[in-house]
Amino acid sequence: MKLASLKAGRDGHLAVVSKDLTRMVVVPDIACTLQQALDNWKDKAPKLQKKYERLNSEGLPAAEAFDVSRCTAPLPRAYQWLDGSAYVNHVELVRKARGAEMPESFWTDPLMYQGGSDQLLGPQDDIPLSNEEWGIDFEAEVVVVTNDVPMGICPNKADKHIVLFGLVNDVSLRNLIPGELGKGFGFMQSKPASSFSPVFVTPDELGDQLQEGMIQSRLFVHRNGDLFGRPDCATDMTFNFPKLVAHAARTRHLAAGTIIGSGTVSNCDHGVGSCCIAERRMLEIIEEGEAKTPFMDFGEQVRIEMFDREGQSIFGAIDQQFVHYAC
Amino acid sequence: MKLASLKAGRDGHLAVVSKDLTRMVVVPDIACTLQQALDNWKDKAPKLQKKYERLNSEGLPAAEAFDVSRCTAPLPRAYQWLDGSAYVNHVELVRKARGAEMPESFWTDPLMYQGGSDQLLGPQDDIPLSNEEWGIDFEAEVVVVTNDVPMGICPNKADKHIVLFGLVNDVSLRNLIPGELGKGFGFMQSKPASSFSPVFVTPDELGDQLQEGMIQSRLFVHRNGDLFGRPDCATDMTFNFPKLVAHAARTRHLAAGTIIGSGTVSNCDHGVGSCCIAERRMLEIIEEGEAKTPFMDFGEQVRIEMFDREGQSIFGAIDQQFVHYAC
Repeated sequence: MKLASLKAGRDGHLAVVSKDLTRMVVVPDIACTLQQALDNWKDKAPKLQKKYERLNSEGLPAAEAFDVSRCTAPLPRAYQWLDGSAYVNHVELVRKARGAEMPESFWTDPLMYQGGSDQLLGPQDDIPLSNEEWGIDFEAEVVVVTNDVPMGICPNKADKHIVLFGLVNDVSLRNLIPGELGKGFGFMQSKPASSFSPVFVTPDELGDQLQEGMIQSRLFVHRNGDLFGRPDCATDMTFNFPKLVAHAARTRHLAAGTIIGSGTVSNCDHGVGSCCIAERRMLEIIEEGEAKTPFMDFGEQVRIEMFDREGQSIFGAIDQQFVHYAC
Repeated sequence: MKLASLKAGRDGHLAVVSKDLTRMVVVPDIACTLQQALDNWKDKAPKLQKKYERLNSEGLPAAEAFDVSRCTAPLPRAYQWLDGSAYVNHVELVRKARGAEMPESFWTDPLMYQGGSDQLLGPQDDIPLSNEEWGIDFEAEVVVVTNDVPMGICPNKADKHIVLFGLVNDVSLRNLIPGELGKGFGFMQSKPASSFSPVFVTPDELGDQLQEGMIQSRLFVHRNGDLFGRPDCATDMTFNFPKLVAHAARTRHLAAGTIIGSGTVSNCDHGVGSCCIAERRMLEIIEEGEAKTPFMDFGEQVRIEMFDREGQSIFGAIDQQFVHYAC
């Protein structure tokens, strides 16, 4: 099934959305918010699924048109957002561009940081920032949402705790990153609010595109209408989602509604383009001696989307612009 | 006023607690949970305050005895937990012990990391961990809770967004930290769930002990009943809480219920002891050539508490033990 949250209050109103993303129905009789559903997933999921099936078979006359502009993030505020860096190819590239060796352990021990989750943006929300000089970048990624995950779980058991998939635009302020990394405490000011796809979907929606904890599908990224990248998400993904979940849960339980990201999707085949500006700039530095592609200015727009084998948008599109915020 | 959350479901039941921490009353008529109150603080705070005044003047016959063992964290799960490192003295010491210089900028630009907030422990909860070899340590700190904070706020305006104060035991796994810091993505596996004081209190409860955004009071830390440290929280605090809030909000809004920590409280006067084992070990290395104080074993206990000028416990005590968790 496919689930969205309509803008309303701090947590939105949970809606079930049809497979073709044309119709929807709010479900306060089942759960008012997605977090409420996740808190009691075992009980709520079958009820939501039943509603979804009726919606798809046109059995719900009360259904409304699905309007992405009404969507907030499926979880407008979450208790946890952890972002991995599963495409080690991308990490190696970033290091290579600055002349640094990548430790061998990066191929076996995932990179992951704790992100801010108190305010997550909707797919068409403007991204407000107060300074273009910060080096504004998008990062297109796949995310999963878990139910309650026990501490110390092993990867082969983590799989069944993944209940939803979605997309994220993990906004990064590139010029603030070196200073923060130098301090050793990870990202904070360099990672403002992230934005999410209109809908999150259950694993069954991915059909046979979901293979070994990865989605075999291209992630399409457009900048101001121009194709920027279209890497395949299952290619060159060193750590699949169950491995990322297990890494996150090594020393603690994870609460229901935890969001875990793949990190910027990236393929070794550079012909498919990139999912963030920084990677393209790294390639330019390596190939041409200097970075040429500029970071985002206010008014510029990014679109992130993925399709199933029939060409149907799976999650709907993240399609938003960066705007000036006056402090 | 003083507020606690009694164990119930995922978010607890909000209770108003008497100033002397002997009586309490749940307040579902005002707000079921602390997060609900924080979401509408302007409306809820005066109502909670009125209830608090009646409770203190014995005007609430329905009040129950306040039993700390029934407490979960005041926010059993929060949307954001950011931990600063405001006692730069402590940071310098840690670096000195490993022979590293501290950058001069650390005196003007706060260190802060994004912590996990999906599951926060109560004051008497056992701390479950699966391996003693991880180098288990406590860290005694002061925290504040904010209401909604706008992006880019300046420190002198951040003050009024601090609505609650409390204490935290920010558990750290010392032997996992070097590996994680080496990866550059900050703490994650090395920072399991944190534990919080029985009550959070409004700024007025601190009276004239709250000076310039800092609490002028000693934080008492006991390990297995033995005094381990009693530094003054306003001494050697390089960044006060309004400065920490402003730092956190530089590139993003902060949602109501954001928790921000001071980092391990630490005084230059080493005679007052330490608020974490790592600091004592650093002092031992510097003074005696080697660390002698061991990290925590399962079954060991830590107590963290602060008192007002009359000797009354302000927040109640964090008093808990580390236990073995079998994966």
